[in-house]
Amino acid sequence: MKSAKATIITIGDELLIGQVIDTNSAWIAQQLNAIGIDVYRRIAVSDTKEAIVNTLREELEEADIVLLTGGLGPTADDVTKPVLCDFFGGTLIVDENVLAHVKAMFTRRNRPLLERNLKQAEVPDVCTVIPNELGTAPGMLFEQAGKFIVSMPGVPFEMKGMMTATILPFFEKKLQLSSAIVHRNILTFGEGESFLAEKIKDIEEALPVHIKLAYLPSPYAVKLRLTAHGQDEQALVIETEHYRDELAQRIANHVVSFEDLPMEDLIGKQLTQNKLTIGLAESCTAGYIAHRLTQVNGSSAYFKGAIVSYATQTKVNVLSIDADFIKKKGVVSADVAEAMAAAACNKLHSDIGLGITGIFSPSNYEDQSPVGTVFIAILGKGKILSKKYKLHYDRIQNKETATQIAMYMIWEFITKTMK
Amino acid sequence: MKSAKATIITIGDELLIGQVIDTNSAWIAQQLNAIGIDVYRRIAVSDTKEAIVNTLREELEEADIVLLTGGLGPTADDVTKPVLCDFFGGTLIVDENVLAHVKAMFTRRNRPLLERNLKQAEVPDVCTVIPNELGTAPGMLFEQAGKFIVSMPGVPFEMKGMMTATILPFFEKKLQLSSAIVHRNILTFGEGESFLAEKIKDIEEALPVHIKLAYLPSPYAVKLRLTAHGQDEQALVIETEHYRDELAQRIANHVVSFEDLPMEDLIGKQLTQNKLTIGLAESCTAGYIAHRLTQVNGSSAYFKGAIVSYATQTKVNVLSIDADFIKKKGVVSADVAEAMAAAACNKLHSDIGLGITGIFSPSNYEDQSPVGTVFIAILGKGKILSKKYKLHYDRIQNKETATQIAMYMIWEFITKTMK
Repeated sequence: MKSAKATIITIGDELLIGQVIDTNSAWIAQQLNAIGIDVYRRIAVSDTKEAIVNTLREELEEADIVLLTGGLGPTADDVTKPVLCDFFGGTLIVDENVLAHVKAMFTRRNRPLLERNLKQAEVPDVCTVIPNELGTAPGMLFEQAGKFIVSMPGVPFEMKGMMTATILPFFEKKLQLSSAIVHRNILTFGEGESFLAEKIKDIEEALPVHIKLAYLPSPYAVKLRLTAHGQDEQALVIETEHYRDELAQRIANHVVSFEDLPMEDLIGKQLTQNKLTIGLAESCTAGYIAHRLTQVNGSSAYFKGAIVSYATQTKVNVLSIDADFIKKKGVVSADVAEAMAAAACNKLHSDIGLGITGIFSPSNYEDQSPVGTVFIAILGKGKILSKKYKLHYDRIQNKETATQIAMYMIWEFITKTMK
Repeated sequence: MKSAKATIITIGDELLIGQVIDTNSAWIAQQLNAIGIDVYRRIAVSDTKEAIVNTLREELEEADIVLLTGGLGPTADDVTKPVLCDFFGGTLIVDENVLAHVKAMFTRRNRPLLERNLKQAEVPDVCTVIPNELGTAPGMLFEQAGKFIVSMPGVPFEMKGMMTATILPFFEKKLQLSSAIVHRNILTFGEGESFLAEKIKDIEEALPVHIKLAYLPSPYAVKLRLTAHGQDEQALVIETEHYRDELAQRIANHVVSFEDLPMEDLIGKQLTQNKLTIGLAESCTAGYIAHRLTQVNGSSAYFKGAIVSYATQTKVNVLSIDADFIKKKGVVSADVAEAMAAAACNKLHSDIGLGITGIFSPSNYEDQSPVGTVFIAILGKGKILSKKYKLHYDRIQNKETATQIAMYMIWEFITKTMK
């Protein structure tokens, strides 16, 4: 096959009434892209026969591959399996391998096996069964007129297990795609998208038609993404990286990384490379920076801990910052942020300490700083980086943004201030 | 109008290649539901003219309302405005109000105004302009053959501001819907969906056709949702709550709440009602519980702080737990979790203390507990609740699940253990 176009259909009313945020589609799309399959639409539909059948029929007109998630559970609102069985003209039969797997799973977890759990072992006789190592509902692969239809559970880790173990290897082998999709990213910090766009205007306008530039703005950070479509993956990589480097040179002051990784991973690499440890004293971000830093496997090697001093009393009792000093300088001040950073180093025995204090909602704080004010200080090995920001969002978004800024500042401290 | 069906179209390649998770659609769907508008499909498409026009044309066959987000920015990859202008046969003209707003915004932020920012003030002459108080790109409302098409920016807080201030009030007034959608929820903890389904089978089977029961499973917790469609909202509420109460009575031991709120809000209400404060000593969850608890506006009234003792050294130095005691009992043990909870109370001067210690990935811990083991202890006012769990997921999912369990345990401690 030269190229393949895929649609992802997610099934479930919870997606349509806004009770659940769909994280599956993004992950599936990433994986398909990596093996050269283009996702051109993503659709969420209700868990009714009519909605599933109509959408599937429509999408099969254009798509080579349709991936469905959801509706395979053991309860009455799960209808995907009988609907697909009927659509492809099959009959439900018991699959002995799945049956043995379901029984073993319940035995291992020491749970009684119900009739409705045994039903999970029934599959349409017109599909190839996809094993589900992490759950009881098997996946199903149907082939029709050279097109592939895959049904998977909606539970994210079960779906991911199935994709990785069976579905992606199957498509790679079966399709032998000659198409390639190459993405290259530049993560920038501290400049808005309009200004970046202005600076790189001539490079953007000179891009060949098969390479597209996209701007992904978020508060204080913009990701630039080049996407190239073609046949020869090696040539595409060289070409795309040429343009990426040209863009990066133009806006060099703002470039953080070419890797499309969360900031916690980029920081983790820097800390590891430089053999540094870190400790935090968080006030207004309340543990969110600690949470983010520890999302990285192996972070225990460099992350010592954090003191979340939400109450002023905690800044005094646990961080041992002088109460009069706080009163004199103001709890939301550069001085207190710097004292917190020093206390973090000291109490947590880390090479680098971060202190953050701010006010994100009108509250009963003794401090009179305007809402949105935040001070961030990082110090260690005799160096210091200390900044003030004024954020303009709501409480939740201010917390998110302050955390994001603090992460960039950790990266800046290690790669620039300390050098 | 009797009832209205809506489609949400999100525009942007970042959604199709999996670089961004779509959180806008869920929020929009919730808001539409609340005023009686049914969302029957959600579609993500590429930011190309072809994809936008084809999808819009298809959806207008069935939908009464189409809401689009994304593609309104100032860079070359943003094509939604000219595409819609063309589709509805209009011409772009400068809107003086928008122009004044854009200029004022740049002045306030002390940024130079670029030509591409001024372009934001251009709108199709065939639309009603929707003001964007929080950004520079205006929204657009088109009417065609009794159908409504709304285009909004993809930036979540800009979109939300526009929906709340203008779009939702407009639809409520304009449509005068006689249809009602009523959702009622039961949040349960500690029993799987199969077992719950078995216990309430007869009630589920006796539900009238206009009331649907859905199961939303997540690790250790299942949300049951009744959705009713009809004309008379008051009657629907009474009927749905009757069934909800009948279901809840049957599974009373597992019911946490009827409110469709995150656990942090339910805990916040309990702490406030009972005039209690809380402090945390987190190891394996590394600040995630603190982050969750402080997502609630006003949480500073009851949340004192947290000590994230990721390193064993921090448990000794900051929590003042005896190093020999940790060595003897094991860092991942009920004894250490309980000592951490006591230290949290003590160091943070809180009424309730939580301690959590566990191992989520094979690491260089001195402890020999199997991966997935976690101990959670909560104490205060002479009472204690202490549990051990064995989690079976990957590192990230274990952290998420342990946090979720800890939140349920805080709720259980206040509502049951302390009584």
